[in-house]
Amino acid sequence: MTTIRAACVQFSARADKSENVALMAPLVAEAAGRGADVVLLPEKWNAWMDGPGLRPLAERLDGGETVDAMAGWAREHGINLIGGSIAIAAEDESVHNVSIAFDRSGERVAAYTKIHLFDVDVGGFSYRESDGTAPGSELVTAELDGVTFGLTVCYDLRFPELYRALALDRGARILTIPSNFTLHTGMAHWEVLLRARAIENQAFVLATGQHGTPGGLDKPSYGHSMIVDPWGTVLAQAPDGDGVIVGDLDLTAQASIRERLPALLHSRADLYRTAHAAHT
Amino acid sequence: MTTIRAACVQFSARADKSENVALMAPLVAEAAGRGADVVLLPEKWNAWMDGPGLRPLAERLDGGETVDAMAGWAREHGINLIGGSIAIAAEDESVHNVSIAFDRSGERVAAYTKIHLFDVDVGGFSYRESDGTAPGSELVTAELDGVTFGLTVCYDLRFPELYRALALDRGARILTIPSNFTLHTGMAHWEVLLRARAIENQAFVLATGQHGTPGGLDKPSYGHSMIVDPWGTVLAQAPDGDGVIVGDLDLTAQASIRERLPALLHSRADLYRTAHAAHT
Repeated sequence: MTTIRAACVQFSARADKSENVALMAPLVAEAAGRGADVVLLPEKWNAWMDGPGLRPLAERLDGGETVDAMAGWAREHGINLIGGSIAIAAEDESVHNVSIAFDRSGERVAAYTKIHLFDVDVGGFSYRESDGTAPGSELVTAELDGVTFGLTVCYDLRFPELYRALALDRGARILTIPSNFTLHTGMAHWEVLLRARAIENQAFVLATGQHGTPGGLDKPSYGHSMIVDPWGTVLAQAPDGDGVIVGDLDLTAQASIRERLPALLHSRADLYRTAHAAHT
Repeated sequence: MTTIRAACVQFSARADKSENVALMAPLVAEAAGRGADVVLLPEKWNAWMDGPGLRPLAERLDGGETVDAMAGWAREHGINLIGGSIAIAAEDESVHNVSIAFDRSGERVAAYTKIHLFDVDVGGFSYRESDGTAPGSELVTAELDGVTFGLTVCYDLRFPELYRALALDRGARILTIPSNFTLHTGMAHWEVLLRARAIENQAFVLATGQHGTPGGLDKPSYGHSMIVDPWGTVLAQAPDGDGVIVGDLDLTAQASIRERLPALLHSRADLYRTAHAAHT
């Protein structure tokens, strides 16, 4: 396969989980109807909140209202589906923020637990994702239609080494970043960082955002879901509101960029190792 | 010192080295006259070419027409000067592409040898910097007025780990990127990558470019020298032509960003280590 049609679904989580699952179904169907080979949903699209209140809404990797629905959509439409992220119950009383990839048969092929939790103070709001959520510690890729996808979530975007490791060591050609970027940081950083990850890794970037004020809370989100190609060109961008954007990812053009501007081969990972890494 | 006034000099190297040194002197004087605490020159501004022909124009770190001129400008004007980069003779018959930092007394305080050499095919042109130039292998910072500068050169910009190591491990608060970016890649990548390096490292970025067709050769350069703050805002940008841009770097505002959005503290360098690094 030399071209992959990718779709990104932009969404704003309502307060009720079942309503979110019901509202997402026709959006995924629309993406499939437009010929998508792979569909990406946003971060925590089925239930947006931080804090211990998220635990009762968490599911299990092998089953739950949302997990079963996503597996069903993938199978029913015969599409690859990267389910944004949803809360998955951890061993203790916390949850993990997990991005699950399903293949065209609805089988779960990979699950990435968000490494970097959003504990910041920006735009007049305080965010403490680590209150009730436990971080992951493993890099994860998914093989879909024989192509390697690097799975990440939202705030991970600020850590370039993660994407370099996915592209350089794990062979990722497409990077997925389901998100709920804040309005304040999104205006200043979202497009720049997405395009930089695409350019420096010569990879496609699929990035979904929530918009509005997800979960019925008062914290505004940026939206602007995007599909970026390995030269940094924004192939598609979502207007405000729920909706689907589609882009065709030309893997042959990507290979040509990697050949003519062989920055990935020029990497000198032996030199950059940080003191932090050297100590662990 | 809580604010540093930085100046970036944009330039287009003429074919004659002595002419370039003579033309640069008034530009540095202009920057000093505008109150610059630190002045950055472009990459290989005194002699632009690749290949073995550069060797006869190379100088020694401790002396030469250009090195002596730069030290004199720093001392004469009482400014810190990061001399873009110039060719320095290597032990063998090759040269190094070296960025030299001088303090206000004209003393050389640091010298960084470009690690990543520009061997690429873009915009209809072929570049082979490694033909006659040998790469460096050391990360380098310079302490100027008690502030840590991370020194890099041009194509280094595509390697985010280098900047992360300078910011996270070496304490760099200001990143310098003297460049001669090509017109073709500059249009697509220059501003995006500069702003990303600033945002992800919460550092100031000083970036100088050559413009026109440096060295009397036919390969066009992008120019657009920029000063970017740690939030990713472009404080100043050069129009086409030789000239000086100035920006005030507010170190207190930088500290506030690093405190409110503590992404540098959230780095998990223990997890990203690449297979390449692990093998060396």
